[in-house]
Amino acid sequence: MNSSTTNIFDTKLDLTFDRIVDLPKELIWKAWTQPQHLMPWFCPLPWKTIACEIDLQPGGLFRTVMQSPEGQTFPNNGCYLEVIENERLTWTNALLPGFRPIAGIAQPESAVDFKFTASVHLESLDKKTRYTAIARHADEAGCKQHAAMGFEQGWGIALDQLIAYVKKL
Amino acid sequence: MNSSTTNIFDTKLDLTFDRIVDLPKELIWKAWTQPQHLMPWFCPLPWKTIACEIDLQPGGLFRTVMQSPEGQTFPNNGCYLEVIENERLTWTNALLPGFRPIAGIAQPESAVDFKFTASVHLESLDKKTRYTAIARHADEAGCKQHAAMGFEQGWGIALDQLIAYVKKL
Repeated sequence: MNSSTTNIFDTKLDLTFDRIVDLPKELIWKAWTQPQHLMPWFCPLPWKTIACEIDLQPGGLFRTVMQSPEGQTFPNNGCYLEVIENERLTWTNALLPGFRPIAGIAQPESAVDFKFTASVHLESLDKKTRYTAIARHADEAGCKQHAAMGFEQGWGIALDQLIAYVKKL
Repeated sequence: MNSSTTNIFDTKLDLTFDRIVDLPKELIWKAWTQPQHLMPWFCPLPWKTIACEIDLQPGGLFRTVMQSPEGQTFPNNGCYLEVIENERLTWTNALLPGFRPIAGIAQPESAVDFKFTASVHLESLDKKTRYTAIARHADEAGCKQHAAMGFEQGWGIALDQLIAYVKKL
């Protein structure tokens, strides 16, 4: 079932982020899949996530709206591709709900002007979780742009925020 | 589970094809999901399908190569999105295996230069099957282009070929 999505990794096209997290995977899953639990941590501060819609099924909407410190807003509309509870969540900004392809080469007004598919994998290690994120891009330009935006640092800060938020619950 | 993909239909963006077929859905599913049983019927004659690769899982490759009567070949690379045995098969040419977005606005060298997601739905009606196909497009231009290529006629001829092929097995 998962050979194609977990094994495909192209060092020229893809980025990955990997960490052991001191939380059970069920709590990480919850923070990723419920709007009220995603908004508090999803954007590295001082950016904020001011809106979130989740239709948690393949073909369903994953929408966030980010706000810059200056108050500018950036909507991101995506579509879930894989929803395997507590294990793997995959979505893309290349499709809209119902798996409809986006028009053009990227979504207008989004914070990113390249297409990517992202996947979060969760694996239990005793009471901790191995947390792996993969971002797959259409071409090297998109991959480099994502890396230059601070992919690794951004995912790291967001994960720190997720952990801090969940531990306060 | 299937509300988002079955309910989204936009008359300006989407095309549909619907017919009652005198075959059980299991045989139609087989003809859609095994290369040796897909190639004989998939292209309206005198076009031919000269190659086919199927990795039947979400994220897996769906590749066909079509050949025109003049001998020109057109590769079509797609990615499966939903694989629900004997019920629904969904794929798109906007993603490649591993759900990787395609570069640019369409695949080079393909027989179509617009993005779409296609879904085949099979529903048993006694020993017959209600066969519904939906093609979802990014924009009106793509939808009109697909309609002008003969979407409805093409799917009808291909389905006639499928039925004739399966009845000879």
